[in-house]
Amino acid sequence: MGVTRTITVDGRPAAGGRLPLLCAPLVGRTAEAVLAEAAAVAAKGPDLVEWRVDFFGPIDRTGEVIAVARQVKALVAPAPLLFTRRAAHEGGERIPLDESQVVALYQAVCAAACVDLVDYELSNPEEHRAAIREAAHGAGLGLVVSFHDFQGTPSFEELLDKLRSAERAGADVAKIAVMPQGLEDVLTLLSATLRARRELGIPVITMSMGAHGSLTRLFGWVFGSCVTFGVGQSASAPGQVPIEDLRAVNEILRRALGDEGGCDEPRPTEAIGK
Amino acid sequence: MGVTRTITVDGRPAAGGRLPLLCAPLVGRTAEAVLAEAAAVAAKGPDLVEWRVDFFGPIDRTGEVIAVARQVKALVAPAPLLFTRRAAHEGGERIPLDESQVVALYQAVCAAACVDLVDYELSNPEEHRAAIREAAHGAGLGLVVSFHDFQGTPSFEELLDKLRSAERAGADVAKIAVMPQGLEDVLTLLSATLRARRELGIPVITMSMGAHGSLTRLFGWVFGSCVTFGVGQSASAPGQVPIEDLRAVNEILRRALGDEGGCDEPRPTEAIGK
Repeated sequence: MGVTRTITVDGRPAAGGRLPLLCAPLVGRTAEAVLAEAAAVAAKGPDLVEWRVDFFGPIDRTGEVIAVARQVKALVAPAPLLFTRRAAHEGGERIPLDESQVVALYQAVCAAACVDLVDYELSNPEEHRAAIREAAHGAGLGLVVSFHDFQGTPSFEELLDKLRSAERAGADVAKIAVMPQGLEDVLTLLSATLRARRELGIPVITMSMGAHGSLTRLFGWVFGSCVTFGVGQSASAPGQVPIEDLRAVNEILRRALGDEGGCDEPRPTEAIGK
Repeated sequence: MGVTRTITVDGRPAAGGRLPLLCAPLVGRTAEAVLAEAAAVAAKGPDLVEWRVDFFGPIDRTGEVIAVARQVKALVAPAPLLFTRRAAHEGGERIPLDESQVVALYQAVCAAACVDLVDYELSNPEEHRAAIREAAHGAGLGLVVSFHDFQGTPSFEELLDKLRSAERAGADVAKIAVMPQGLEDVLTLLSATLRARRELGIPVITMSMGAHGSLTRLFGWVFGSCVTFGVGQSASAPGQVPIEDLRAVNEILRRALGDEGGCDEPRPTEAIGK
């Protein structure tokens, strides 16, 4: 029976194992903005907070990045903090660092243990991925290996291959975010998620983006995605839904699914129409 | 571009064309119970009400059926009233009428024009279907032709074939309700719905039943199902969700989908990550 795996931090399932984890992104450009955002977002009780450091102006000042990360981590605790420099070629902001400097930044952040997880793209060169994997695991942090396509949705097999490749690359969590060109693509993403839940040994995070993709942000967890990114204060990608709306739909879904939430085989059904 | 078609009554789209239509079933066994249920359900403002007359004890007294239908119609107006004798072999209650008597009941109900639409199963003999089609259309009522499988979910092609067959059988609305044996079946039902929306010239109503199927009751309208059956006072099939919950999720979905609700091609997407 397929069961949705979730993220563990310090050996314990995040949010006590409750699914999905509601993740709020931070996209401030200054330390003040990021900290204000973190405080506002923390008040909404997210299960996970992602700092999109590619939005951060002083990303080239490692000491400042670490200092801000420490303060954000304290502000959002007990929610774990995910540290992400989204590469420009996967939809992130342009930054004044080359990839070796990015790796050095990740290494410093990991060594400082000022975050709980780090996200790095599958598309980066293996030597960089290896360096970041070692830095993360050496410091006891979780590694998310991610793939993004803002133009379209790869086929079912390609999506599954990205998730399998992330696992082979040493990820603790595999993530894909793709843009649907129609509702069929949304169904393809959900099918691949369902298959990955059965096949992979690590948790997966999947989503379709844009308006139609918001469907996967609302109910993708039933098919095996353990995290949904909501709007805490600002969106970091198209189609994100306010955390309050995600929570409202999740509660209704949990009631409707009963014992079957997070499992993909039905219980024996009862007599009908009585 | 595929657009979800909706039910029309007296030449006008039900609920002013708003999707999905929230349908509440009535399953009382006595006239008093049905009327009390109709009053309670009407207070929740459904867009459509279905009287499941196979639950009605005096179903063999045509005059009483018509009298109750008239009162129900008045109670639930402006919501249209759908009259359904669900056959036992498709999940309905056992009734003391043979199929010729059922046809005569439908003919009398249509002639009395005491309801707005009638539902009859595709699996019935063509001669009976033709008689009911003529009775409905002769009285200016809409005809729903339906297919149910409480054991499993037919393949994508078989599901599509049932919907096409309903259209060929003269239906104004084609309906399928099937039981998923896993989440893949839920995706298959949604895929078939999406295809039918593009191919068919009539509105479709589709759903997966049971706990997992509740997903389709919540989100199926985005894929092309124009009606979702909710619990007004009592459920008539497994997996039905309270009308209040359907309404809450619909509002969140409409906000998330924006202009794309009810269309299956995305608008050009905006620049990302800004």
